[in-house]
Amino acid sequence: MRDALSYPPDGDMRDALSYPPARLAPMRIVVLAGGIGGARFLRGLKRAVPDADITVIGNTGDDIHLFGLKVCPDLDTVMYTLGGGINEEQGWGRADETFHLKEELAAYGVGPAWFGLGDRDFATHIVRTQMIGAGYPLSAVTEALCDRWKPGVRLIPMSDDRVETHVAVEVDGERKAVHFQEYWVRLRASVPAEAIVPVGAEQAKPAPGVLEAIAAADVVLFPPSNPVVSVGTILAVPGIREAIADAGVPVVGLSPIVGDAPVRGMADKVLAAVGVESTAAAVAEHYGSGLLDGWLVDTVDAGAVERVEAAGIRCRAVPLMMTDVDAAAQMAREALALAEEVRDA
Amino acid sequence: MRDALSYPPDGDMRDALSYPPARLAPMRIVVLAGGIGGARFLRGLKRAVPDADITVIGNTGDDIHLFGLKVCPDLDTVMYTLGGGINEEQGWGRADETFHLKEELAAYGVGPAWFGLGDRDFATHIVRTQMIGAGYPLSAVTEALCDRWKPGVRLIPMSDDRVETHVAVEVDGERKAVHFQEYWVRLRASVPAEAIVPVGAEQAKPAPGVLEAIAAADVVLFPPSNPVVSVGTILAVPGIREAIADAGVPVVGLSPIVGDAPVRGMADKVLAAVGVESTAAAVAEHYGSGLLDGWLVDTVDAGAVERVEAAGIRCRAVPLMMTDVDAAAQMAREALALAEEVRDA
Repeated sequence: MRDALSYPPDGDMRDALSYPPARLAPMRIVVLAGGIGGARFLRGLKRAVPDADITVIGNTGDDIHLFGLKVCPDLDTVMYTLGGGINEEQGWGRADETFHLKEELAAYGVGPAWFGLGDRDFATHIVRTQMIGAGYPLSAVTEALCDRWKPGVRLIPMSDDRVETHVAVEVDGERKAVHFQEYWVRLRASVPAEAIVPVGAEQAKPAPGVLEAIAAADVVLFPPSNPVVSVGTILAVPGIREAIADAGVPVVGLSPIVGDAPVRGMADKVLAAVGVESTAAAVAEHYGSGLLDGWLVDTVDAGAVERVEAAGIRCRAVPLMMTDVDAAAQMAREALALAEEVRDA
Repeated sequence: MRDALSYPPDGDMRDALSYPPARLAPMRIVVLAGGIGGARFLRGLKRAVPDADITVIGNTGDDIHLFGLKVCPDLDTVMYTLGGGINEEQGWGRADETFHLKEELAAYGVGPAWFGLGDRDFATHIVRTQMIGAGYPLSAVTEALCDRWKPGVRLIPMSDDRVETHVAVEVDGERKAVHFQEYWVRLRASVPAEAIVPVGAEQAKPAPGVLEAIAAADVVLFPPSNPVVSVGTILAVPGIREAIADAGVPVVGLSPIVGDAPVRGMADKVLAAVGVESTAAAVAEHYGSGLLDGWLVDTVDAGAVERVEAAGIRCRAVPLMMTDVDAAAQMAREALALAEEVRDA
């Protein structure tokens, strides 16, 4: 249309066509999400562009089997947050939760005690485990669970294959690999991570719909999720990084590091394991200009803009603290604006 | 000792030996138990003879798989009741229970909704299912669960093999077999049971310890449990009935029918299915003098004593309402007294 008409259209044409032109289809946004940071950003994104067609590719590297049940912490955090069932204070788990089942397991001497599964939350894992036992792939199970929660986005696990992030640590003089959850939740990242290995990632295939959603996207966003164990794990599934790089659409990320420290969580610990300093600029360079077109840093990191742009990534400094849904929505608008800027460049 | 000394011992000897003579070993009692009636009787029995060595052979015919978990209602009712964890009012399930997990399963559209698993109760089924999945037989799992509950008896499932009581019914003109729990809990025994089939019983073997406990018993008791779907199912496991008949020790039962009606539950419905009238005397005849040596009926059924004794079973009429633990203890004393009477006869 732009080619056929003079551009910008003259006054009469503006009235006839309405300007800016109405999109023929909703904007298609693909978001690579981890847990709390990804979920809260997505809630803001939905408020910012309520008509957008949003596909979330969820990290499953921190999935864990507990008590015979398959637990998918990141998928559930996204699902509960967008579906209105989240415990707002802690950012994960269910609202109005009790922990009687867990208490009883402890009374039987059955652990681990450090992983906080609530009574309501258990139901999700039971339904998921039963469906997987019946032969459904995780992507179909996730869709079925979302039938209840209606998160308003299409939530797809990065892969139906098992990928499990392990962390190499030294505890009491003994070098060993522990499950990411054991490192993160039990050890509270209190010992240095020597390596982060997404076991199984190399053999994993993207879940049905993942590559198609990326190929059809108008924009790809990396929320302020952990660049190593959340977004990094998704990118470790062969085909996903390449599909994003090849999509030919703006790829924009938001820094999870503000003022040289993670906004939440302990991202600095796992960044060190991959040799990346804990700064907004270093994370952008870690993703690299081959993948990332735009990068938002917090206003306190405005000094990083020049360094990021020198790396070939367009950069803006805006407030990046998701203090509430409005703040997250404003961050989403800034990310989309930067994407448009990249697109028009 | 009795043979070596004059009997009864003279006065001096009485002081030296103490009279009645102290047992060299505690009395060994084997009890075949179903759920609520069996559990409450056992609590009375423990109070009546606190030093006795009690082995409980538990019915597993009403076990059911729900949500991927193995649920053993009768074993758990015995374990919780004797271990102090039972919901006293309803007689099954845990005290101080919540039902959040079940609510959430219903919100996912996952059923059945008619089976009341509480949040605390779920832990037992999760631990059991995990142990079975790890290869432990049900008897070992039950022992492990009892490590926590310390019921004060040795609780053994009748068999480590799967036995599942099915009930043939006609619902809306359609004849079908339903799981006992579906008949009992969902249908509330509201349709006639045409047949009761303990599926798998013929191929089942008694669990380790069952036949040994019977062979070593001083007395075998049938509590006022359901004679068809509780005690009857245990007796359907090949070898158990024969072991009891061959043990050569008193076998005494307590009628679950008082005044021609079940004390609790709907035993009359399943008695009809096996062609037995719902009276205290008919149940004794159903067990038969080949198995049963003594039978207690309630005082309101004193008129049945003559008929039961005519069938070759010693019978006494005593109060059989387990209104509290003391009442159950008195019933246990009456049963043991009748056993002694049978033994001395």
